[in-house]
Amino acid sequence: MKALVYQGPGQKALEERRLPDIDAPGDAIVQVTKTTICGTDLHILKGDVPTCEPGRILGHEGVGIVDKVGPAVTMFRRGDHVLISCISACGKCEYCRGGMYSHCTTGGWILGNKIDGTQAEFVRIPHADTSLYPIPAGADEEALVMLSDILPTGYECGVLNGKVQPGNSVAIVGAGGIGLAALLTAQFYAPAEIIVIDLDDNRLQVAKRFGATATINGSDGKAAEKVMELTGGRGVNTAIEAVGVPPSFITCENIIAPGGTIANVGVHGTKVDLHLERLWSLNISIATRLVDTVTTPMLLKTVQSRKLDPKKLITHHFKLDQILDAYDTFGRAASTHALKVILET
Amino acid sequence: MKALVYQGPGQKALEERRLPDIDAPGDAIVQVTKTTICGTDLHILKGDVPTCEPGRILGHEGVGIVDKVGPAVTMFRRGDHVLISCISACGKCEYCRGGMYSHCTTGGWILGNKIDGTQAEFVRIPHADTSLYPIPAGADEEALVMLSDILPTGYECGVLNGKVQPGNSVAIVGAGGIGLAALLTAQFYAPAEIIVIDLDDNRLQVAKRFGATATINGSDGKAAEKVMELTGGRGVNTAIEAVGVPPSFITCENIIAPGGTIANVGVHGTKVDLHLERLWSLNISIATRLVDTVTTPMLLKTVQSRKLDPKKLITHHFKLDQILDAYDTFGRAASTHALKVILET
Amino acid sequence: MKALVYQGPGQKALEERRLPDIDAPGDAIVQVTKTTICGTDLHILKGDVPTCEPGRILGHEGVGIVDKVGPAVTMFRRGDHVLISCISACGKCEYCRGGMYSHCTTGGWILGNKIDGTQAEFVRIPHADTSLYPIPAGADEEALVMLSDILPTGYECGVLNGKVQPGNSVAIVGAGGIGLAALLTAQFYAPAEIIVIDLDDNRLQVAKRFGATATINGSDGKAAEKVMELTGGRGVNTAIEAVGVPPSFITCENIIAPGGTIANVGVHGTKVDLHLERLWSLNISIATRLVDTVTTPMLLKTVQSRKLDPKKLITHHFKLDQILDAYDTFGRAASTHALKVILET
Amino acid sequence: MKALVYQGPGQKALEERRLPDIDAPGDAIVQVTKTTICGTDLHILKGDVPTCEPGRILGHEGVGIVDKVGPAVTMFRRGDHVLISCISACGKCEYCRGGMYSHCTTGGWILGNKIDGTQAEFVRIPHADTSLYPIPAGADEEALVMLSDILPTGYECGVLNGKVQPGNSVAIVGAGGIGLAALLTAQFYAPAEIIVIDLDDNRLQVAKRFGATATINGSDGKAAEKVMELTGGRGVNTAIEAVGVPPSFITCENIIAPGGTIANVGVHGTKVDLHLERLWSLNISIATRLVDTVTTPMLLKTVQSRKLDPKKLITHHFKLDQILDAYDTFGRAASTHALKVILET
Repeated sequence: MKALVYQGPGQKALEERRLPDIDAPGDAIVQVTKTTICGTDLHILKGDVPTCEPGRILGHEGVGIVDKVGPAVTMFRRGDHVLISCISACGKCEYCRGGMYSHCTTGGWILGNKIDGTQAEFVRIPHADTSLYPIPAGADEEALVMLSDILPTGYECGVLNGKVQPGNSVAIVGAGGIGLAALLTAQFYAPAEIIVIDLDDNRLQVAKRFGATATINGSDGKAAEKVMELTGGRGVNTAIEAVGVPPSFITCENIIAPGGTIANVGVHGTKVDLHLERLWSLNISIATRLVDTVTTPMLLKTVQSRKLDPKKLITHHFKLDQILDAYDTFGRAASTHALKVILET
Repeated sequence: MKALVYQGPGQKALEERRLPDIDAPGDAIVQVTKTTICGTDLHILKGDVPTCEPGRILGHEGVGIVDKVGPAVTMFRRGDHVLISCISACGKCEYCRGGMYSHCTTGGWILGNKIDGTQAEFVRIPHADTSLYPIPAGADEEALVMLSDILPTGYECGVLNGKVQPGNSVAIVGAGGIGLAALLTAQFYAPAEIIVIDLDDNRLQVAKRFGATATINGSDGKAAEKVMELTGGRGVNTAIEAVGVPPSFITCENIIAPGGTIANVGVHGTKVDLHLERLWSLNISIATRLVDTVTTPMLLKTVQSRKLDPKKLITHHFKLDQILDAYDTFGRAASTHALKVILET
Repeated sequence: MKALVYQGPGQKALEERRLPDIDAPGDAIVQVTKTTICGTDLHILKGDVPTCEPGRILGHEGVGIVDKVGPAVTMFRRGDHVLISCISACGKCEYCRGGMYSHCTTGGWILGNKIDGTQAEFVRIPHADTSLYPIPAGADEEALVMLSDILPTGYECGVLNGKVQPGNSVAIVGAGGIGLAALLTAQFYAPAEIIVIDLDDNRLQVAKRFGATATINGSDGKAAEKVMELTGGRGVNTAIEAVGVPPSFITCENIIAPGGTIANVGVHGTKVDLHLERLWSLNISIATRLVDTVTTPMLLKTVQSRKLDPKKLITHHFKLDQILDAYDTFGRAASTHALKVILET
Repeated sequence: MKALVYQGPGQKALEERRLPDIDAPGDAIVQVTKTTICGTDLHILKGDVPTCEPGRILGHEGVGIVDKVGPAVTMFRRGDHVLISCISACGKCEYCRGGMYSHCTTGGWILGNKIDGTQAEFVRIPHADTSLYPIPAGADEEALVMLSDILPTGYECGVLNGKVQPGNSVAIVGAGGIGLAALLTAQFYAPAEIIVIDLDDNRLQVAKRFGATATINGSDGKAAEKVMELTGGRGVNTAIEAVGVPPSFITCENIIAPGGTIANVGVHGTKVDLHLERLWSLNISIATRLVDTVTTPMLLKTVQSRKLDPKKLITHHFKLDQILDAYDTFGRAASTHALKVILET
């Protein structure tokens, strides 16, 4: 089969690989029909993810059709259309039973990282019963690719962790795919205002179209100041960090209202300054999270009932054959205006 | 009347001052019968609290007897025995109505800071109806002095913010008065283990007597390592920072288990390093809080029902006349083993 | 001044009454500019509310302009435009401090019940600081009359108590004003489906227009059966009882899914059968509540940010002079299709 | 092997039965070392549980040693000492993933009901990975038999559902095993008072020894009245129904304070009157639950850390051979003072 293989920092290729097979009784083999590329894949390609070794098939998102199941699989059978979660969960360990699938002792984020991933014609999914989700008949499968990672990430790490509530003020720092996913799902809770901050005017226009009540281009270094003006000097109840660099976290520290919550979604590579000399008395909380994808079934319901339209995030389409082009388009998002690209097999 | 007056950095004196009088319709004048000294008073005396100006009567804790009330006061009258909260709350502003009295727009921590305090024979209490608490007949009033500040602080900022739960692991970094108050009130929730860390063996012995299941003297810089051993490499579900300096906060970052909560109780004078490059994926939360004293009535019930014995925290007794000696004893806690000192008028 | 006065069961008149005056330091006198009629007023007129004695001016909703304030009032002054809450709250008692204003020991629902109400040119509001809400400049004041009672009731007693969540199934039994208020505010949480049940097709059409995803006319006694069909045999996560009679509560018992919540909004005059022989093992909860109006500030924000359009509930307009006609129109809602009527002074 | 078999209403016998074998890949065969008898077993013997057919081996509690495991079992192997949960949970269905194991679509309470149970030398446990719990080395295994059902039931259905909190007032109606289990676990949360009501003075003495702050013999029909006196006319914050008959539920309705919670633990055979004509405005909630045993790991930790002593509940010991005597002793609890009996194989 064809597969996109990481070959070490800066290197990738579309290779011919052997079909995966059942390894453990709980495995399923899924024929991938649609997949996509994540910002994390770019991180891997930069060499920033040491757990991912050369030779690895990338990709942790997608939908497909079950091809084979191991003897312990009871929830799925050959032919079932399924959504693949970016997180593999055994459903048995203490973390899984507490709803923290991201820390599953034999799973977590392993797909396209520690084991071969979804940017291929077939993929082996361990713990299939609790890592795949049935796709309802008639659903728009392309849209559901957005439920593998980006939407649960924006929702769980940004919106739920940020405790977005009706009538509240929300700021989202970063209008990349993840920030926009938080923006879409924050609207489940009818906040009174959602201010989106970015350095790219095109993204801010998209944010506006997706429901932001105000946007701020932070290039002049005055984003925090402007948020305080927009909120009458009070700051926001929820600040969502969706970039992963110190300055955007500091912006969150500077705009959070007393009693508010900073929800970190960004993947950070370095420490940040926490200004406890000011924040200690502000009754705030800061929450971090690696997506657990526990909300996938609930997100499926919001898509089915048209409360959420994931297709808004899809900007480009490619065949799996063209995946190198797809990476190029996705990697130059500033100029291509790419959000999410769909790869069809 | 006699009053302990701050006279600028490093300077204090027992002065003769005029009796306070009703300023606003919601004020009460309380004859202070017992008060105490707080670590914050020492901060003020070092010149670290710019809101507190020379000439201010210090003290924000105490019990007493209502002497006069303004015309808008409906909950108290002359002769009532009352507990004075360290936080003044109007009960009307958005913060007060949300239970965040610490941020009351016309109150908060003002006593012995922005207005004259309780280390005197009489004190004016603004917003009396919502800043004083009736003392039940027969209660041990000396014990209740601990409910003005130290116990609600340990409980709200440490235990509630730290989400202590039955069966969980808790670490408290710092066994001063506030850390011990957190230790006492954490036991409301039957955690399986409470590990207390300090640099002073005497305090650790007290912690043991107060219910710590393990104690660690962190002088060798290996406290985090030892906590990880004690918890089988998992870390603690709740880490309570009760010192207010970067190293103790870093210890909390190093011992928190996935899904855990760091509750900051310490008053910090400088920023700390937040290691988001590690913590971003750990599903943790960090909570800060200036005590709101919303739990004072509930703490009163636990004292009345003997679930909490605040007297354990009281080590020394003085007359108000001897307050300079009391400050000296309290200020040299390492050698005097003072926790809280009671001043009687 | 003119005022609508209850004169005993079945009797009411528009009378000339003396202007109210400040009684207690916390009172305000408000010139009522717009008021409305509530279903509860009809209950009083039937003689069903023994706390309301003949001679009482009715009405507990409205907006107006502050005319006078007592000396303890600090949040409002003459000329302020205000929203009047149906619940008077002292802000000081144990209930008020716990957010349960409905059980305020010197307040609660007293307006137009135990003290004179708002269907008059002027009204005395006790505990004004915590029972009135400032109207933002430029707001549509007529719309805000819906925030005195009907919207907080639908929201607090139905939606919050019912724990409506994104993606969930909700049923509302009863499409009168209160049921429709629950329908409007349930949409703050993006439930996947909201099924509305009533006996009146006109009301069901309104419900459809207001956002119901399905409607059921329960005249044939098969409402529960149809809900089970619509939900694939699972039942609903939230069932909101918005009528106040045993059959509609029983419908809720019959349609609630395991783990679900029945939120009672209706005012009941008799006991109902609770089928614990079936429900004991269903992991459900049942919640009752007299509206507290603690969410009024938050609802104001959702109106200002256009997440909620209260004007949808207003069907008729009258002058205060025409209040007897207004009562007639409101009382014959089935034929007049009245939801809420506005009375202007 | 020997097994206690239900032979139809009123009939049971100790029979010789074939050893159970692995049926499904997730099964385990456990050699039962200690088991017990539950009130529910008596219900079955009365013929009150139609799902349990003649020929069934009874029992849903116990500890033992794993004898065999199916190929899909990954958490246990032969020789492991395990605690058997009364609830079988697949860990995969929507209910299990939401923590509601009691409603598992292929499990729930099936042991000793729809499939053969634990009152035998060996038992087959389906979904073994998520229905057994490892026993820590050195634990007192006899004590842990109390964690199969009675303690999680008292804790989840009574204490958690009843939202017991520090400083609160709790009443427990019924001092049988389940009521006492609620009494023991309520103390995790340091309530100020726990009032226990029963008709049997011996049980009330036990309750007193187990931590009740007051006891009431309700034989004179004045229990509710006495609770109101003890609580100064306010009622209790939590009322736990632990009998399962209408009068005890009505007592709960009569003693619940505004804002309080009634937690139903009793198994009811008939409907009860819900006095909504009074309760609609009291801001109360009522919660039902079939135990999920999701708290078993947490309860294990409280036992290991000596916050909970389950042995208090054990009054008698028998060999499995003597199980008919054990049933007799347990069935005549009023005269034998039996709480829980241990059967050893």
